Amino acid sequence: MKRPVNLEITHREPNSMARAGVLRTPHGDIKTPAFMAVATKATTKGLGSFMYEDMGIQGLIANAYHLYLTPGEKIVEKGGGVGKFMSFSGPTMTDSGGFQVFSLGDGFGKKVSKITAEDIPREAAIAVFDEDIASQHGKLAIVDDEGVSFTSHHDGSLHRFTPERSMEIQHALGADIIFAFDECTSPAADYDYQKEAMDRTHRWAKRSLAAHRQDIDANDRQGIYGIVQGGRYEDLRLESARDLAAMDFDGYGIGGSFSKEDILGILEKVDKELPDEKPRHLLGIGEPEDIFIGVAAGIDTFDCVLPTRNGRNGTVYTFSGKTSLERAEYTEDFTPIDAECDCFVCKRYTKAYIRHLFKSGEMLAGVLASAHNMRFLTRLTENIRASILDGTFEQYRDSFLKKYKK
Amino acid sequence: MKRPVNLEITHREPNSMARAGVLRTPHGDIKTPAFMAVATKATTKGLGSFMYEDMGIQGLIANAYHLYLTPGEKIVEKGGGVGKFMSFSGPTMTDSGGFQVFSLGDGFGKKVSKITAEDIPREAAIAVFDEDIASQHGKLAIVDDEGVSFTSHHDGSLHRFTPERSMEIQHALGADIIFAFDECTSPAADYDYQKEAMDRTHRWAKRSLAAHRQDIDANDRQGIYGIVQGGRYEDLRLESARDLAAMDFDGYGIGGSFSKEDILGILEKVDKELPDEKPRHLLGIGEPEDIFIGVAAGIDTFDCVLPTRNGRNGTVYTFSGKTSLERAEYTEDFTPIDAECDCFVCKRYTKAYIRHLFKSGEMLAGVLASAHNMRFLTRLTENIRASILDGTFEQYRDSFLKKYKK
Repeated sequence: MKRPVNLEITHREPNSMARAGVLRTPHGDIKTPAFMAVATKATTKGLGSFMYEDMGIQGLIANAYHLYLTPGEKIVEKGGGVGKFMSFSGPTMTDSGGFQVFSLGDGFGKKVSKITAEDIPREAAIAVFDEDIASQHGKLAIVDDEGVSFTSHHDGSLHRFTPERSMEIQHALGADIIFAFDECTSPAADYDYQKEAMDRTHRWAKRSLAAHRQDIDANDRQGIYGIVQGGRYEDLRLESARDLAAMDFDGYGIGGSFSKEDILGILEKVDKELPDEKPRHLLGIGEPEDIFIGVAAGIDTFDCVLPTRNGRNGTVYTFSGKTSLERAEYTEDFTPIDAECDCFVCKRYTKAYIRHLFKSGEMLAGVLASAHNMRFLTRLTENIRASILDGTFEQYRDSFLKKYKK
Repeated sequence: MKRPVNLEITHREPNSMARAGVLRTPHGDIKTPAFMAVATKATTKGLGSFMYEDMGIQGLIANAYHLYLTPGEKIVEKGGGVGKFMSFSGPTMTDSGGFQVFSLGDGFGKKVSKITAEDIPREAAIAVFDEDIASQHGKLAIVDDEGVSFTSHHDGSLHRFTPERSMEIQHALGADIIFAFDECTSPAADYDYQKEAMDRTHRWAKRSLAAHRQDIDANDRQGIYGIVQGGRYEDLRLESARDLAAMDFDGYGIGGSFSKEDILGILEKVDKELPDEKPRHLLGIGEPEDIFIGVAAGIDTFDCVLPTRNGRNGTVYTFSGKTSLERAEYTEDFTPIDAECDCFVCKRYTKAYIRHLFKSGEMLAGVLASAHNMRFLTRLTENIRASILDGTFEQYRDSFLKKYKK
C-alpha cells in the first residue's frame, strides 16, 4: 500500500544534488523545493491563514510541544486537527517537540544550564516527575533513557515526553507529516555526550516509528520523518544519517543545529547517506543564501522563523539584500519594498507608509513586513524550483547571490 | 458651485429624526447612516486597509494631531494625502486635533491637570512657546485666544496649533472632510469655563472656516465641518449648535464629550438647531445602543475606537451582546463568533481558535477580534440604514435592543 506521504522527483540538477518534485500528502501537494510557513502555536506570527494563499504558502509546520501545552492536543484534535483548527486546508507538519523541550525547558542561553541524567541522582533521573528537583534547579529538562521530564516555559509545571507520548500527541494534532521524538543537545555538549544523545535519539526514533506504524489509523493518514542528529560532529552526523536511513521512515528531517554553520558544510554528505527517493526537510534554517546551499545538497523543504522575526523588527528582504524600514532614507520613499514583488503588501503599500507604522508602534507594521518577507522566501523557492526545471539552477544561484548583499 | 461634500437625504423615518442618504465626497459616496473606521495614525489599530473592503468600511477618520507629529503632514501630502498614503481609495475625514491637543497635551486622567490661560501669567499664555513654563508644568496645553501651545506626547517638545495652522495641516493631509479647530474642555471644567471655551471655539470655527474658504484649491476638494461644543450643559450645547449653524459649514461634528451620557440625552435637541440638509457626525461614540440613539437624533456618521480596543482585549460583539473570548466556555467551541456574520473571521475561524490565540499572546488574536468587531458595527449600521429605507427602523431597533445585552 502506498504511504500517505511520498515524494515524486521530477527533475534533477546535473551538477549537484538539487532536485525538484512533488511532495504528496493527504492534504494536497507541495511543489518542491518549498519554503514552509512556521506556525508554531497554530499561527504564523502576525499572519493569519487568510493571507497564506496570497503569500504562496503551500504548507506549514506547527509544534507539538507548544500545542500540547496550549491549547492541548485534545482541543486541536476536536477542532479537526492543526490545519482545520487554524483554517488552513493545505499540507501540515508538526515538529515533535524535542527541540522545544530542551531549548525552552532548560533555557539555552539563559543562566540555567541543562540538567542531564549525569548531573542528578539516577533514581531522580528515572523518576517521571520529581518536584523537588525541579524546584532546586528551576527550568529544566531531565533526560533518561525512557524520555524526558521537563518544566513548562509557561508556568514551570512538570511534564513528561517519551517517543510514544510524542506520537500520541502528534497523532491527535493530525498533521500530514510528523517527526520522530529526538533529543536536541546543547551546542556546548562535548563529543561524548553528543554521541550518547545521538544513540538515544536513534533508540527513540525506532520507538517513534514503531508507535506510529502500530497505530493503523494514524499510519494511514500521516507520514513520519526521522530526525538526523549528531550536533557539529561530521562523523556523528553521518552515522546518524546511516542509522536512520536503515529505518523505514517516510522522510527525514535534519535538525538540532543551533548554529547553521555546524550543519550546512556537511549537509551534502549527510544527505548522501539518506535514501535518495525520500523527502528531506531542513529544520529551522532558511536565510536565502542557506536555501541555495540546502537545495544543492538535496533538501526538499525548509522552514525558518526569520522572515517573521525580521519582519517584526522592521527588516525586510529584497533581491538586493535585507534592509531596515526604519532607515531615514525611506521617510519619503513612496515606492514598494520590492517593485517586482507580487505580494499584497508590495501591491498596496509604500516604504514610507510602513516606516511610519514602525515609528508609530502600530501592530500593522510587523504584519505587513512579515507578510512581504514570507512571500519573498516562497517566491525565492519558486524561482529556484523553476530554475531546476529549466536547467538553470547554477546560473540563477550565481546571479541571485551576486545581487544579494547578506 | 456645488460643494465637494454634500448630503443627499433619500429617506426619512417618520417618528424620529432618523434619515438615510448618500454623503458625496470627492473620493466616493458613503451610504448613511454609516460607521467610519478610526484610523488615527493612518491605520486602524491592527487592521490594514487591505481588509477594509471585506469589512464593509466605507470611510475613515484620521487625526491631524497625530499625523502632524508623525510622520508630519508634509510626508502624508507627498504620499498623496492620507487616503492614498495608507492605500485606501474611499472617503476620508481628519479630526482637527483639538481633542488630542488637550487630552494628550495635558494628560487627562493623569497627574498633570490642564493649565489654562488663567493659571499662568498672561504674557506666558500669549507667548507662542515658553520652554520654562513647559518644563515647570510637564505635559501641558496652554490656551490663549489665538490658539494653543502644547507639548508632544511623544517627546515633550513644544508645538502650537491655531485654527489657521490646523487648516494648513488638514489641507496637506488632504482628507475629503476636515474639521474646524476646537477647544476641547476637561469634563471637570465648570460652567463659566465651559462657556468661555465654547465662545473661543466659535471664534476659532469662524477663523477655521475663513481660512478654508480662502484656500481655493482646498475648498474645491475638501468639505469642512464645524464642531458643536458646550460640554455637559444643555443650554451651552444648544447655543453652540445655533451659533455654528449660522456659519456656512458643509457639515457638523458633535464633539468634546468625554462622557457619552452628557451628550446622548440632548443630541436630538442639538441636531434640531443644525441645518437639516447638512451631514452630521457624532465624534467618538459608537456602542451599538448609542448608534440607535444617534440615528434617531439625526446623526449620519459615527466613529469609535471601541470595536478595535475591545477586540484587542478579547471582547467581541454579537447580536446577543458583547462577550470575552477568553471565557473558559469557548475552549472547545468550534463555532464562529457569530454564525450569521459575513466577515472573513467568522467565515474561517472558530471561537476556540481565537481564544487559543489570545491565551498564547499571539498578535493575530487582536487582529481577528478587531476585524470582526469592525464588521459588526458596519453591518449594524447597514441594517439600520436598510430599516430606514423600508420603514421598519423602530421595529429593528426594538428587536435588536431586546436581544442585545449591554
